[in-house]
Amino acid sequence: MRILGIDPGYAIVGFGISDYTGKNFMPVEYGAILTEAGTDFPERLKAIADDMDFICERYMPDCMAIEKLFFTNNQKTGIDVAQARGIILLSAVRHNISIYEYTPLQVKQAVVGYGKAEKKQVMDMTRRILKLEQIPKPDDAADALALTICHGHCCKGVSIKNAGQEKK
Amino acid sequence: MRILGIDPGYAIVGFGISDYTGKNFMPVEYGAILTEAGTDFPERLKAIADDMDFICERYMPDCMAIEKLFFTNNQKTGIDVAQARGIILLSAVRHNISIYEYTPLQVKQAVVGYGKAEKKQVMDMTRRILKLEQIPKPDDAADALALTICHGHCCKGVSIKNAGQEKK
Repeated sequence: MRILGIDPGYAIVGFGISDYTGKNFMPVEYGAILTEAGTDFPERLKAIADDMDFICERYMPDCMAIEKLFFTNNQKTGIDVAQARGIILLSAVRHNISIYEYTPLQVKQAVVGYGKAEKKQVMDMTRRILKLEQIPKPDDAADALALTICHGHCCKGVSIKNAGQEKK
Repeated sequence: MRILGIDPGYAIVGFGISDYTGKNFMPVEYGAILTEAGTDFPERLKAIADDMDFICERYMPDCMAIEKLFFTNNQKTGIDVAQARGIILLSAVRHNISIYEYTPLQVKQAVVGYGKAEKKQVMDMTRRILKLEQIPKPDDAADALALTICHGHCCKGVSIKNAGQEKK
């Protein structure tokens, strides 16, 4: 199973792709889609859409694990992140990729085994599980890879109970 | 100039298209994109994207006037409206349609001449300006048509000052 992890944003979208055999994770690719500040916002959305389409077509993931959105104090930023996240969901659904949402708590629990784990611990465990020499950069890419591990672990649990059916 | 007005949402997206000569408005089409409750959210986004693409290709508007988003008390709804709005912006930018945002206050001021006008007054003035026999239904379509009038009026003002150049 090939999992695409996404840490959503509009200036930086972290992405990570892992293959999961049900036992081991293998990193395939990771990085970040960057859009330039000062560019018209719709143009930034278009850049994200084009790059997401490229990633979906090139790596053909089976599923996408994306961070759930919560609103922060900055409403303007929150609205723009949500607008960009809509674009990312659209790209996945147009490529028939099933979509799963996880909260930061679920990611920490799945990767470190402890919901209150620190960011550094999550990143270090991600590095170990994927047998990478260094913690991936930028942080958004590391977060996206952590989401792939979270989905792999969650999926495995569900597939045992439901005889191979993925949860919706 | 052909203007596409959009009242964003994820269950109902109101749209309205008007031709504006610099003097008169002529309604071209209006209606609403509806997505079914209970459908997976990414599928609803895809339905909006497909219908928006259809509208952009069929009516070939020169520009889009869309309502600016503000957050309400319901964060979950706010996030989902923003995600859908991102999709709508993407469709416009992918069809080379310039995008303009207006607040409800600006719409009221442009259509009725009074920022605190009631919804009913805005709808009735929209009906009169577009020479329609009845107030368009649903309300979302009427709101979208009001946005086309707002953009026409604002644009006209700007075009006088800037010798025909549209404001960015």
